[in-house]
Amino acid sequence: MAQQERAIRTRRVILEAAAAVFDERGYEASTISEILERAGVTKGAFYFHFPSKGDLALGVLGEAVTTEGILPQEIKLQEMLDTMLLMAYRLPREPMLSAALRLAVDRNSRHMFGTRWPDWTVLLASLLAEAKARGEAHPYIEEMGIARLLVAAWTGVRVVSEGLPEEYDLPTEVAALLQLLLPSIAVPTVLTRLEISAGRAARLFAMMREGEPEGAGLAERVR
Amino acid sequence: MAQQERAIRTRRVILEAAAAVFDERGYEASTISEILERAGVTKGAFYFHFPSKGDLALGVLGEAVTTEGILPQEIKLQEMLDTMLLMAYRLPREPMLSAALRLAVDRNSRHMFGTRWPDWTVLLASLLAEAKARGEAHPYIEEMGIARLLVAAWTGVRVVSEGLPEEYDLPTEVAALLQLLLPSIAVPTVLTRLEISAGRAARLFAMMREGEPEGAGLAERVR
Repeated sequence: MAQQERAIRTRRVILEAAAAVFDERGYEASTISEILERAGVTKGAFYFHFPSKGDLALGVLGEAVTTEGILPQEIKLQEMLDTMLLMAYRLPREPMLSAALRLAVDRNSRHMFGTRWPDWTVLLASLLAEAKARGEAHPYIEEMGIARLLVAAWTGVRVVSEGLPEEYDLPTEVAALLQLLLPSIAVPTVLTRLEISAGRAARLFAMMREGEPEGAGLAERVR
Repeated sequence: MAQQERAIRTRRVILEAAAAVFDERGYEASTISEILERAGVTKGAFYFHFPSKGDLALGVLGEAVTTEGILPQEIKLQEMLDTMLLMAYRLPREPMLSAALRLAVDRNSRHMFGTRWPDWTVLLASLLAEAKARGEAHPYIEEMGIARLLVAAWTGVRVVSEGLPEEYDLPTEVAALLQLLLPSIAVPTVLTRLEISAGRAARLFAMMREGEPEGAGLAERVR
């Protein structure tokens, strides 16, 4: 393994360990020594990549916005939905994503490191703008405002469903939320062609994990 | 002042002080001594009402679900909207409400004290059920599921808009969210008669503070 490749791998191992600990305990209660132990790397390597606990938090937040696994769709609104559905599937399963949300929701760590909510908002708004330009979305919608509400509502569904006594499946809850919201966003002829379901989230995830190359043919297979 | 009345007042003063400190620092970082100092009551009175910090948290959470200021409306869905709009107006202004949300959002304090989200869900679901029985809401909606999503989305709007670099007005954001959601809940003939705006939230608050008695005449004045 080339030296650079090994460094990238070590960095990733440390970051995964940090995410797991942040996700379990929150930023404040997490200690470098626990992260170091869980990562199983040398102190030298550790501090080379992340000189402080704050650098670990920033590293985790750096991984929180992704369109990995999102395939180009004929309908741009479907791409936007896919982004939110796939994230709903992944977040409860991936401490990296779950920890980033926890860091953002906690007011103390948020004051120190900020959040990725503005980036998520811009990402969804750009898909909404494209959808509007193509006539898929109602012409009067204000992309940034709608995108901000989508990010907020998605986040709330995660926070609240995690906090309720019964267990709720995040993709199912997010799909129900999006089903409620989309009639106010998509024009009727597009609305009927959208797929908004937890099943789609699971399929998107399975395809991403298969690691197949992206392409138009694959976009079809998601259905 | 009668002894009982004084006790009630003292309890309230302590609880307000606790809410202010919890709201600023979070549960973990709050100390009894700071709350005691801010309340300005004797140690004896303090520990009589609240033997521990946990009792203070439970006391704050006890105040978090309220329909104070909500007037009976001809359209039940309007009552549901009023409940959510008025809360959006009050929460950023009242540490008691804001602190309760913070305690619920924080995973550590939530594990200790639970949340009021189930109570909010039941409250909104009962209004939705009434709306459905009257034909105001679509007959196929599942009240508990929709109510849970409303609570979650409302909460997310608070958490995210508080965390964004720009300032957002909570009643304005919540009104925009409800405007997006209501077409999937209300039948069209009712939808056009609903008032969903930040201005209504402010008016509901002003009327509540005037302390006027509730009644049908007042319900009209809200418009």
